[in-house]
Amino acid sequence: MAKVSMDLVKQLREMSGAGMMDCKNALEEAGGDVEKAFTILREKGIAKASKRAGRATGQGVVEAYLHTTGDGFPPQVGVLIEVNCETDFVAKGTEFRKLARELALQVAGFEARWVSRDDVPDEVLVEERTVYEAKALQDGKPEQIIPKIVEAQVENFLKQNCLLEQPYFRETSRTVQDIIAEHISKLQENITVRRFARFNIRES
Amino acid sequence: MAKVSMDLVKQLREMSGAGMMDCKNALEEAGGDVEKAFTILREKGIAKASKRAGRATGQGVVEAYLHTTGDGFPPQVGVLIEVNCETDFVAKGTEFRKLARELALQVAGFEARWVSRDDVPDEVLVEERTVYEAKALQDGKPEQIIPKIVEAQVENFLKQNCLLEQPYFRETSRTVQDIIAEHISKLQENITVRRFARFNIRES
Repeated sequence: MAKVSMDLVKQLREMSGAGMMDCKNALEEAGGDVEKAFTILREKGIAKASKRAGRATGQGVVEAYLHTTGDGFPPQVGVLIEVNCETDFVAKGTEFRKLARELALQVAGFEARWVSRDDVPDEVLVEERTVYEAKALQDGKPEQIIPKIVEAQVENFLKQNCLLEQPYFRETSRTVQDIIAEHISKLQENITVRRFARFNIRES
Repeated sequence: MAKVSMDLVKQLREMSGAGMMDCKNALEEAGGDVEKAFTILREKGIAKASKRAGRATGQGVVEAYLHTTGDGFPPQVGVLIEVNCETDFVAKGTEFRKLARELALQVAGFEARWVSRDDVPDEVLVEERTVYEAKALQDGKPEQIIPKIVEAQVENFLKQNCLLEQPYFRETSRTVQDIIAEHISKLQENITVRRFARFNIRES
């Protein structure tokens, strides 16, 4: 199979709204031809997800997960999550609720702090950037490559802390967004994570 | 029994840290004598709660409650709450966890927005005050009594929206703080509500 560049993957993602791995696979299948890859995604019903991605999500479910360790302590970590869809038909289905459950487990285990990178406050990004810059300077890195180093570290920070970009805990080669996109295709409606809370007794 | 003034109740609350109803009852029993009422509270182990009220609470439980209405919908309202105590011994007990469960139910049903009045943002208070003032003026109330009217309405707003000041749903003559104080006395350690989250699909 053809090795595809990240630029092509990015382009296809923007065209289709599909997840990174889906785009990569389609591009490999299409030998690097973006148009052909887009058609493959459409055939699989994955590209259509993007058309649904803008649609209003007024229904949904609130799901909770309490983590118990079995050492006599009551739950020390808990998650509350709201996942939205378009119709009560999907909201009432078991598949949608199972997805919400999976997402609650994901938040409990992988300690996401925000839903997407758009939710990260500016001051947090500025602080991260400042720390990475200082570290790179201290490590004696050549000045001209420091911006690249910092960018890569910020990217890494976002991927670790934003739920949608995290690796899905049951299948770490795919992101949480990939899993949601799969359900959008399957259930034929837009699905969004509106918000979540994660409490840990040990947090100060 | 003697009818006791709110001023006396307030004074005894500050002395003892006990709940409003406990203070009122003790004052009635003491015929309005604050010192005697304080002794009554101490005898009942309620005043001692205030000495414990400053102590660090590093243990606790995270509890969740999902509200299902039984019409085929999955939970549309959910609550996550963190309740803290001092030792793992109390944290592991059923009584403490039962309290956390009750508090989660309280938040689900009575829609508290903050734990205590200290948590209400200044801008919210300013806005409420402005609305009440405008309303009182519009209603043609005499200017000299408007501050009193506004104060009463702000008090009412705080009592409705702060968890600790709300009437306890199973026994509306007592506040949530009264119930917590009772558990502080009974379990012999400080108990605090650290935080909660309440998600409702229908909220815009």
